[in-house]
Amino acid sequence: MNTIILQTQVRCEFVSITEKVQQSLTVSGIKTGIGVVFCPHTTAGLTVNESWDPDVVTDTLHWLGKNIPKDEPRFRHNEGNSDSHIKTGLFGNSVQLIVENGKLVLGQWQGVFFCEFDGPRERKVFLQWISG
Amino acid sequence: MNTIILQTQVRCEFVSITEKVQQSLTVSGIKTGIGVVFCPHTTAGLTVNESWDPDVVTDTLHWLGKNIPKDEPRFRHNEGNSDSHIKTGLFGNSVQLIVENGKLVLGQWQGVFFCEFDGPRERKVFLQWISG
Amino acid sequence: MNTIILQTQVRCEFVSITEKVQQSLTVSGIKTGIGVVFCPHTTAGLTVNESWDPDVVTDTLHWLGKNIPKDEPRFRHNEGNSDSHIKTGLFGNSVQLIVENGKLVLGQWQGVFFCEFDGPRERKVFLQWISG
Repeated sequence: MNTIILQTQVRCEFVSITEKVQQSLTVSGIKTGIGVVFCPHTTAGLTVNESWDPDVVTDTLHWLGKNIPKDEPRFRHNEGNSDSHIKTGLFGNSVQLIVENGKLVLGQWQGVFFCEFDGPRERKVFLQWISG
Repeated sequence: MNTIILQTQVRCEFVSITEKVQQSLTVSGIKTGIGVVFCPHTTAGLTVNESWDPDVVTDTLHWLGKNIPKDEPRFRHNEGNSDSHIKTGLFGNSVQLIVENGKLVLGQWQGVFFCEFDGPRERKVFLQWISG
Repeated sequence: MNTIILQTQVRCEFVSITEKVQQSLTVSGIKTGIGVVFCPHTTAGLTVNESWDPDVVTDTLHWLGKNIPKDEPRFRHNEGNSDSHIKTGLFGNSVQLIVENGKLVLGQWQGVFFCEFDGPRERKVFLQWISG
């Protein structure tokens, strides 16, 4: 198992970890198979989406902020971050990747993103590569 | 493949299955690898999220109930549980886990939850462990 | 790695690919294990949900269209398909499947769907099977 450590900068942001995930794969030596990227936090997730135009992430965070408000009066969890947990549930805390010829198989516009929903914090991501 | 059987108690609830998933892993004898936990139902899903404060689940179910109402007049599916199918789609029907030293790799606050969106019912979960 | 190619017909639709996924599995010769089905596009996802009553998909697309509008004035991504990217993030771009006796393990009502959120287009899906 490999670990990526990252430092997020604001409460909600998507941080591209595509290069770090590819580095982990390269070190593993696996040429064909699959990988699981797993976020061990409950207020941050992982996703695969467009890495070309940063406005896609901006719009995604706008939608999430508008539809899952931090200050919903009915929320009872007293840390004030129920919205972060819900966003994590909706996006999920892991992504699955396919490996061919020692490379991540990604579409032309895709990248792997760490989804920070309650930063800024130091965060970890775990990776496991399986030969197929 | 292993199977977990559980009985849910109300229409919408999250039931922790972390211990049962670990038991399945222990029986498998796998020490390093990954696991797929798969829900074969279409009105129930699986997620990994906070297992410490039950208010997190309460707040998540509140948000889902408010934003995906059971009685949306435009819904046409005549079983009256389109909301349950949509919630399942958003949360997903499987989770992926990493295994090290025969143990699930989970963050300090994480647990594995069965997400009942149309109970109470008897439900099944399937598990497959892959050595890596 | 296998590839499924499909042609979607409208902007938003779910297309069942269950039979094509099973065909890919059969060709792989894998009898026991897991599979990753991966969508390399950023405006289309994958899901496992009810394949019996098409009204379930209709209702799901209705909810998505109502809650993630294409014409949200605050969206900045100038291709006009931020809603498609957000829907992809919420549903996810991959599904994980369990294999037993050379067959997909699916519940009685489940099917595997390609979720088109910005069609019509020619689309691809990648599949990797891992023996367990």
